[in-house]
Parts: sequence; structure tokens; C-alpha cells
Amino acid sequence: MTEDNVVYVGNKPAMNYVLAVSTQFTRNAKEVVIKARGRAISRAVDVAEIVRNRFIPEAKVKDIKIGTEEVTTEDGKTVRLSSIEIVLEK
Amino acid sequence: MTEDNVVYVGNKPAMNYVLAVSTQFTRNAKEVVIKARGRAISRAVDVAEIVRNRFIPEAKVKDIKIGTEEVTTEDGKTVRLSSIEIVLEK
Repeated sequence: MTEDNVVYVGNKPAMNYVLAVSTQFTRNAKEVVIKARGRAISRAVDVAEIVRNRFIPEAKVKDIKIGTEEVTTEDGKTVRLSSIEIVLEK
Repeated sequence: MTEDNVVYVGNKPAMNYVLAVSTQFTRNAKEVVIKARGRAISRAVDVAEIVRNRFIPEAKVKDIKIGTEEVTTEDGKTVRLSSIEIVLEK
């Protein structure tokens, strides 16, 4: 779920990822990148907002990027999914 | 669904909103703002990406903001919802 300062948001409850992001900041990360694709994008925004509003009030949104990624499914099809990358900094 | 240069993304298929945004650009809007709340946030990103990749290739993402809005439901409860605002410019 985490790797360096990146948190990948998937289908678990938002609070799991909120804790992952907050933990990185409390370990003195200056920046944490929240990434998600497809339907998890809404949850990634929730995660960023909950971290800022409730856990790490000094965290700011440094940058937000959106894009399109090609993903190969288990049955070999290629689908295009929107993606988001939210950079929080303390 | 549209008002000035704002397109509110809700629960309809993404293509409805893609057409609304593209129409505004073909009517010479310089900027179109795509707004969504809650689960529609993922769809708003899809809309921006489809417009840029397929319909208005010269459109660029000028700015993306996220926030939290308090919404009063039909039964009088107040809920907090994440929101997104994507500004596309041509």
C-alpha cells in the first residue's frame, strides 16, 4: 500500500489510507503522494481532505495531476483508466 | 447541467458531460470549469480526460482544486462531501 512516500488508494475504506498518509508525515516525510485510478479517484480526494482537515492540519495540497493509463486486465484486454496524483506537503 | 462555463458532473454517463464541455469550447469559451462532489469526482476526471484526448486536443488542464463541502440531505442531516473543480483552458 505504501512505498517511499507514495500511497496507492484502492477499494479499502478511506481511513486505511488516511492512516498510511498520516503515518508518513509523522515519520517526517515532507511530501506524500496519493495515487489512484478509476473509481478509487473519489476516495483519493476523500483521503487528502480527511488528512488535511482532521489529522495533519499543516499539510497543504502542493500539486494535483490527472491522466489516463492503459491497464491490461486479467483476461488480456487493454482498458483506459483515468488516474489522479495528489501531492501533499507539510 | 451547464451555467456560464461551468459543467456540474453528476450520475449520468460521462459522455453527456463530455458533450456539454466540448460544446462550450466550440462556442468559443476560453475556459470551462468541471465540478463534482462525492462519487462523481471520478467521473469528472474521466470527463476532463476524454475531452482532452478525443474532442478538444488543444485543451489543457489549467488548475485543479479539491475541497470539502457541507451538504444538507433531504432528511435534514448535514454531511461532508469532497469536491473537485477542474479548469480546462483552450
